[in-house]
Amino acid sequence: MKISFNTWVYSSFPVWLPSYPLEVVIQRLASMGYDGIEIGCASPHAWPDYLSQERRKEVLGHLKQHNLEVSAMLPAPGGGPGVNPSSALKEERAFTVKHYKDVIRLAHEWECPTVIWVAGWAAFGTSQKEAWNYSLEGLQDCARYAKDLGITLVVEPTPADSNLIETADDALMLAEETRESNVKVMFDTFHALYRNEVPSDYVYRMKDKLHHVHISDNDRLPPGQGVGNFDAVLKALKEIDYKGYLSMEVGFHTRQADPDWYAQTSIDFLRSKL
Amino acid sequence: MKISFNTWVYSSFPVWLPSYPLEVVIQRLASMGYDGIEIGCASPHAWPDYLSQERRKEVLGHLKQHNLEVSAMLPAPGGGPGVNPSSALKEERAFTVKHYKDVIRLAHEWECPTVIWVAGWAAFGTSQKEAWNYSLEGLQDCARYAKDLGITLVVEPTPADSNLIETADDALMLAEETRESNVKVMFDTFHALYRNEVPSDYVYRMKDKLHHVHISDNDRLPPGQGVGNFDAVLKALKEIDYKGYLSMEVGFHTRQADPDWYAQTSIDFLRSKL
Amino acid sequence: MKISFNTWVYSSFPVWLPSYPLEVVIQRLASMGYDGIEIGCASPHAWPDYLSQERRKEVLGHLKQHNLEVSAMLPAPGGGPGVNPSSALKEERAFTVKHYKDVIRLAHEWECPTVIWVAGWAAFGTSQKEAWNYSLEGLQDCARYAKDLGITLVVEPTPADSNLIETADDALMLAEETRESNVKVMFDTFHALYRNEVPSDYVYRMKDKLHHVHISDNDRLPPGQGVGNFDAVLKALKEIDYKGYLSMEVGFHTRQADPDWYAQTSIDFLRSKL
Amino acid sequence: MKISFNTWVYSSFPVWLPSYPLEVVIQRLASMGYDGIEIGCASPHAWPDYLSQERRKEVLGHLKQHNLEVSAMLPAPGGGPGVNPSSALKEERAFTVKHYKDVIRLAHEWECPTVIWVAGWAAFGTSQKEAWNYSLEGLQDCARYAKDLGITLVVEPTPADSNLIETADDALMLAEETRESNVKVMFDTFHALYRNEVPSDYVYRMKDKLHHVHISDNDRLPPGQGVGNFDAVLKALKEIDYKGYLSMEVGFHTRQADPDWYAQTSIDFLRSKL
Repeated sequence: MKISFNTWVYSSFPVWLPSYPLEVVIQRLASMGYDGIEIGCASPHAWPDYLSQERRKEVLGHLKQHNLEVSAMLPAPGGGPGVNPSSALKEERAFTVKHYKDVIRLAHEWECPTVIWVAGWAAFGTSQKEAWNYSLEGLQDCARYAKDLGITLVVEPTPADSNLIETADDALMLAEETRESNVKVMFDTFHALYRNEVPSDYVYRMKDKLHHVHISDNDRLPPGQGVGNFDAVLKALKEIDYKGYLSMEVGFHTRQADPDWYAQTSIDFLRSKL
Repeated sequence: MKISFNTWVYSSFPVWLPSYPLEVVIQRLASMGYDGIEIGCASPHAWPDYLSQERRKEVLGHLKQHNLEVSAMLPAPGGGPGVNPSSALKEERAFTVKHYKDVIRLAHEWECPTVIWVAGWAAFGTSQKEAWNYSLEGLQDCARYAKDLGITLVVEPTPADSNLIETADDALMLAEETRESNVKVMFDTFHALYRNEVPSDYVYRMKDKLHHVHISDNDRLPPGQGVGNFDAVLKALKEIDYKGYLSMEVGFHTRQADPDWYAQTSIDFLRSKL
Repeated sequence: MKISFNTWVYSSFPVWLPSYPLEVVIQRLASMGYDGIEIGCASPHAWPDYLSQERRKEVLGHLKQHNLEVSAMLPAPGGGPGVNPSSALKEERAFTVKHYKDVIRLAHEWECPTVIWVAGWAAFGTSQKEAWNYSLEGLQDCARYAKDLGITLVVEPTPADSNLIETADDALMLAEETRESNVKVMFDTFHALYRNEVPSDYVYRMKDKLHHVHISDNDRLPPGQGVGNFDAVLKALKEIDYKGYLSMEVGFHTRQADPDWYAQTSIDFLRSKL
Repeated sequence: MKISFNTWVYSSFPVWLPSYPLEVVIQRLASMGYDGIEIGCASPHAWPDYLSQERRKEVLGHLKQHNLEVSAMLPAPGGGPGVNPSSALKEERAFTVKHYKDVIRLAHEWECPTVIWVAGWAAFGTSQKEAWNYSLEGLQDCARYAKDLGITLVVEPTPADSNLIETADDALMLAEETRESNVKVMFDTFHALYRNEVPSDYVYRMKDKLHHVHISDNDRLPPGQGVGNFDAVLKALKEIDYKGYLSMEVGFHTRQADPDWYAQTSIDFLRSKL
């Protein structure tokens, strides 16, 4: 298993500060011993429209120089343009698919194997079924695009934030309905805890479809700082012979966060367990 | 003084849920007796790129039908594209100016007199002076564009979220430096309370430059539910003969919010005071 | 709208104490002005196997004498026999269906129009789909039995306790898949609040399929004692012209409850609103 | 002394989730090094009516395979059928005795030496004396049935949940009044702490009648995670030369529990002390 760190807490999403240039984040994570970086696709790090070809090569150079892989890329839902794949607005759905394709292409350029599908949410007046069908349609479209570039899309249950894909089974069902082989699933220990569920259960349920993992304790704390049972999660991952990334997604909910503390505390804990 | 309600808590920004179509919000606010609606420019309500001319006319029709004015329009910083006017990225600054102009044009179409200038924030590596200059430059550009359409831009101190325009004087200085007559200022009682300052002081300081007011108690509660001294704020506003809007910006920080409770509780409190 | 009170807090479920004989509860609720009583089907109140024909008539007599209707009957899941309709054990499913039919017959004898379908939960190793199908099969069987007796079954989303029927849409879909006209839906304001959702949204979503309502504030407090927006719920119910029961399901989670306080406080609040 | 773990937290009682099949629980507890498993007699684990002869043999096979003894069996009071031995309802008392006999026979088949007598509670309208007599009568009946099968019944004081057998002396008196040699007593450190009593006092008071022990810290935490003085309890048990089981009964009060964390943390603590 490899360890990566998601950049939200170092970025301007969702809170505006603190915010660090991507080079600084790459350098710091590498110096702490991370194998990978999971890049959130918001400005100033990676909003595709703002990245020239020159800039993309420059970032790749930094990554290579610091021997840091991009473990996954993650769009930023909920801001101005929404990028809600299950929006009732056809304009929003169209932009969302375009944006995901931009992210997929960017992932390809940065040699990143995985893009996370945040499946969206049903606003008042949109039925769960409609929202599901919109998300499925967008996911299929993006999956076909991603396949040619060798990218896997992973569906993540996000019950703390949304109301569409809330459980391991929801994610598995949506992935399966695409009938595309490059659509898999992931889970986030934080979201499992939000549901008062047992995170290790997700490992056993998702098993051979599990392609990525977000690690976070309750309240978006580093693992080991809250109530999560990470011994059980790691044991389960070993049992299913998981070879992918453990990607920390912590601390980004509050301006009070010191990103380096979150990153260092997280990797210290995980290295002591692996 | 007129009373309006900001739509964030009814929208997908910054938290994704709850989220209601704009028509529903217009109908509900009007039925509670609001004079105006302050429209947050995020999807699904008002991301300009998603609004066809037909849709824009339809929304205006709803507003007229319910006799509701648009008190102000407010861009949504911090999401994927950032729209931070003081970003170190020239691509982001360019998009931000373009986006503000789109919002200004939309405000014009919806007969709204005011657009709020969220001046931005200085990320790590950007000096306060650089950030100030970037924001000033963007604001001047937008102000000239707005002038022809009869729109006023108002600079808001947002210390709780940012690190650039934090005080009444910061806002007044930035506005003044534009040397554009249609740039004025506003304040938000929540941000004043965040700085442990006296909200009514802002009224006296901003006086004839004061063009818009955000009302919120601490913790984004409706006025009267927290510790804010709104008697003093209203007294000060009467003393300076303020004729603009009191616009509630409450409840949007948490998925747990029941938007109607926030809207009803806020107007009940203010009507009892005015 | 009529007002009833669920007996859990007066019974031995789920906590053992306090516990009052059914006669006492009938007398007390009637004296407080309740229109109806919602009877939880656990001992000592209404475990069908313990109720002789003589006893059933005696209870009906008490109800008539105090002019109290039985608004609904509610099985007690989770105890020794489980009565989980979506259990992986065929023995448990068979007993559950038999037990629901016993409850339906008892409802008929007590002139109660409604029995609540608690759809169950998926234990580790049971997929969501399997659990759904088991629950659907049981519900169809019971619905046919109930139809001849003029009883309506209502599906309730119970996200706080389970993982199968969690949303308004889940309940509507399960009900619809039965293709039986006497299967409708209900919701509980407590469960909506647990999901950080807006309770009045459930009214608009369920609309003409809404056949019963559980009223409870957060933490199973009486309405008005917590954060729930019951003005909005009542307004929505009037708008859809709801004619059914508002049934309090409060206070049963703790031995510390004084049942009469819960019952009196609840009806005082509702009477002041209706 | 041997260590076992009670299955409630892995079962659907009293909260519905999480819930694991009995095989999974047997495997996990054995892998953590437990000597025994205390089986709660609720579905899906061990509601006797649902267990065919084939299934009973299968479970025994699993136990043998993992070298795990059944330390005790524990009925599940408070659910639909109540199984309150001191109920005012003769139907409930009759079913309760029948159910205890079913559990005793099941204990015999699974080579378990001990069944716990939860003595019941006095509902409103039942005097303590009546309740005592009902419980005594049921206990005597069951004790005679158990004697032939070599099973010991143990009376447990449960003050946190009930109002009948609350102290060491209550339990000793009830046991003595049966005049049956296979009726002994036990205590639970959690219930002692609930009464603000010293758990080790129970050891000295019960002494040679002490046949089983429940270990739990306050709030149903694993021992060592709360305020309980387990050094004193273990010292007292050594002094009286206790040879029975220390059986963890923890974490079952909340859906938020991760059962493996409770089991692992508990045995780690006790192994470090023994």
